[in-house]
Amino acid sequence: MTEAKNINGHTRRSFLRGAALSGAGALMAGSTTAKEESDLLITEVQPWAQELGDGVDAVPYGLPIEHESDVIRRNVPWLTADAISSVNFTPIHALDGTITPQGCAFERHHSGAIDLRKDDYRLMINGLVDNPKVFTYFDLERFPRENHIYFCECAANTGMEWAGAQLNGAQFTHGMIHNMEYTGVPMRTILKEAGLGAAGDLKDKWIFVEGADASSNGRSIPMEKALDDVFVAFKANGEALRKEHGYPVRLVVPGWEGNMWVKWLRRIEVTNGPVESREETSKYTDTLADGKSRKWTWTMDAKSVVTNPSPQSPILHERGSLLISGLAWSGHGAIKRVDVSIDGGSNWQTATLAKPGEKMALTRFYLHTEWDGKEMFLQSRAMDETGYVQPTKSQLREVRGLNSIYHNNCIQTWHVGENGIVENVEVS
Amino acid sequence: MTEAKNINGHTRRSFLRGAALSGAGALMAGSTTAKEESDLLITEVQPWAQELGDGVDAVPYGLPIEHESDVIRRNVPWLTADAISSVNFTPIHALDGTITPQGCAFERHHSGAIDLRKDDYRLMINGLVDNPKVFTYFDLERFPRENHIYFCECAANTGMEWAGAQLNGAQFTHGMIHNMEYTGVPMRTILKEAGLGAAGDLKDKWIFVEGADASSNGRSIPMEKALDDVFVAFKANGEALRKEHGYPVRLVVPGWEGNMWVKWLRRIEVTNGPVESREETSKYTDTLADGKSRKWTWTMDAKSVVTNPSPQSPILHERGSLLISGLAWSGHGAIKRVDVSIDGGSNWQTATLAKPGEKMALTRFYLHTEWDGKEMFLQSRAMDETGYVQPTKSQLREVRGLNSIYHNNCIQTWHVGENGIVENVEVS
Repeated sequence: MTEAKNINGHTRRSFLRGAALSGAGALMAGSTTAKEESDLLITEVQPWAQELGDGVDAVPYGLPIEHESDVIRRNVPWLTADAISSVNFTPIHALDGTITPQGCAFERHHSGAIDLRKDDYRLMINGLVDNPKVFTYFDLERFPRENHIYFCECAANTGMEWAGAQLNGAQFTHGMIHNMEYTGVPMRTILKEAGLGAAGDLKDKWIFVEGADASSNGRSIPMEKALDDVFVAFKANGEALRKEHGYPVRLVVPGWEGNMWVKWLRRIEVTNGPVESREETSKYTDTLADGKSRKWTWTMDAKSVVTNPSPQSPILHERGSLLISGLAWSGHGAIKRVDVSIDGGSNWQTATLAKPGEKMALTRFYLHTEWDGKEMFLQSRAMDETGYVQPTKSQLREVRGLNSIYHNNCIQTWHVGENGIVENVEVS
Repeated sequence: MTEAKNINGHTRRSFLRGAALSGAGALMAGSTTAKEESDLLITEVQPWAQELGDGVDAVPYGLPIEHESDVIRRNVPWLTADAISSVNFTPIHALDGTITPQGCAFERHHSGAIDLRKDDYRLMINGLVDNPKVFTYFDLERFPRENHIYFCECAANTGMEWAGAQLNGAQFTHGMIHNMEYTGVPMRTILKEAGLGAAGDLKDKWIFVEGADASSNGRSIPMEKALDDVFVAFKANGEALRKEHGYPVRLVVPGWEGNMWVKWLRRIEVTNGPVESREETSKYTDTLADGKSRKWTWTMDAKSVVTNPSPQSPILHERGSLLISGLAWSGHGAIKRVDVSIDGGSNWQTATLAKPGEKMALTRFYLHTEWDGKEMFLQSRAMDETGYVQPTKSQLREVRGLNSIYHNNCIQTWHVGENGIVENVEVS
């Protein structure tokens, strides 16, 4: 077990010492009343109220305050021995809301993050089009634009958990996901500009997309999806893509596995069928118990996870008011409902969605409850607009066997001890 | 005139040299076809496709790529001589979409940004409540939470423009605004916990809120607003507030002037009336032509600005396809429509809203048009759900005179020259 401490270095012991002074009978949270104790932080003028703070010239681009230095992308050394073909994880246990700041949005590269200047950027559209084109970055800026918030989840997210409870933290089990507001140009606009035929001719066509990095990471996408909601993005959360997310241009493939969101996008070829590249044959397929493989498993099925409490975010307060929080998402559309269980799935309570679920975007859920101080087996279960219900791990194993790496969307279980410590466990 | 260059240091001259090679007749954007030229960036394997890029261990918290180093908060030296009582501006000319990354969200401090640790944080609720309370940061985390995207605009945004076209860039004329997804606890929940009386008793009550910094920056808020949508936030765009935005806790007062969004929130007092503090008498009031002042001018009226093209983001391409982009917002609710004029307000075209407007949040608009290469007087005009229409500068001056600093929501005019250079101008 790792990381079982508060992200602020605030220990359980010191918190309880403070809480012991609290008045009882608070409706919704532990609290102290000024009358009951002499809290110097309230009764005395503090240094920060007597001195000027920082001016505004020092930090043209602001960074998190040093007290939040634990809220960072992390990797798992034994999982990422190869520093280049590597991955790190979003600290979802320390975030809230739905937007993922670019600075802590996970990375996954097949040949490392390349440095590609806007001036050197080219996007070729070739293959079965009437007017093959090459666009510069500045050409792309002249097309009509769209804005959308979508999640991007690596197909291998939660992949280690096929074999049991492996990684002790939501960051590591579920952190290969981020959710950003993208700005870019619809694929249909770009294909039309290159003289794509009329819709009637397109039924069996595909596009093959590849990146400018050494891996090229080529993937085939059926034309129906390409013309629907795929788009070519150059901004995320308002600003330019970060280098590690494909600066200056990446593909956005809403609801589909992250490997298809090709970074440093350099080429779109219209083809008569799938290319059957390495990335869609030997990789990103799921080997079943009988040795056959599931292919074209593009869509990320409905999934959820409790982010707080979780192993990296234990309960540091006494029994009583407890705010359970988590994330849910589905590549098939909007999340409609999330249920939470504290007894390993025997009983379920419906959580509150912070906002109505939006298509292919992270949804934040909360359950405000009373903790009796006893152990819990915490689970969450997502339901999407298609009626699909997130399966248990055993249900998933029955269908998929134990050979898989990708597409594990099973219900996650956290054990919460009487001491507030949380661990990754399986329940039968 | 300042800053009339591309943010990437890409000069107009070099761009036009490239564009001269382009094929004509492209429907929507300038483009090059591979057949027409030998573009080594397409025909030759580039270094970044032959070598491994960066691995993922280097940057636990990611930063913008160096090529975007111009996309930063900036101040105006002659406007901000006092480094502490100071302000800087969001680079809205270089952003897109609606979310403002925390790192480039403007700052405004009255006594500098203070360093306040979560362990040292206290929030007192006192005054006309049955159970005065002091909450720790960790207490606040135990209440039910909400998530909302709201804009925060300084009352002085665009304030220099009362006197004419003063500042040559959307960052400087309209950059005291940001738009983030906040997570926190509703004020009504906190007041209820402190034993606020029943609604019938609250009609004439107010809250007075102040911060933990030396300025304390106290402001009075009527109870009706406090119980409606005000909330106490501890996250923005998913992560902790930045130091400069009030870490660990700030007030969010949707649609109302930024000065009321008290940072480092330390106290909420329930009172029988407004306190009439310095911040709501000598400051943040608008002196009219007759010397009387408008008071309680809390709500930010509907407003918009074209962010591209703008003085810091000139047109760097030839005539033809042009994507005009901008932001609109209203403190009274959702933006319903934005019109754009290229002739200084004689004729208007309705822009496309990237998404339907949301209450008290930035709305992105686009107008995809053809530029004939002639000079333009670019304007945008926002309409909100109340039917209110953003006024011209002369309309606003007629009502408010010329003594004002705050609450300038007039239509902005950019002159676009035949050379693509953009300047801040007034039209009669």
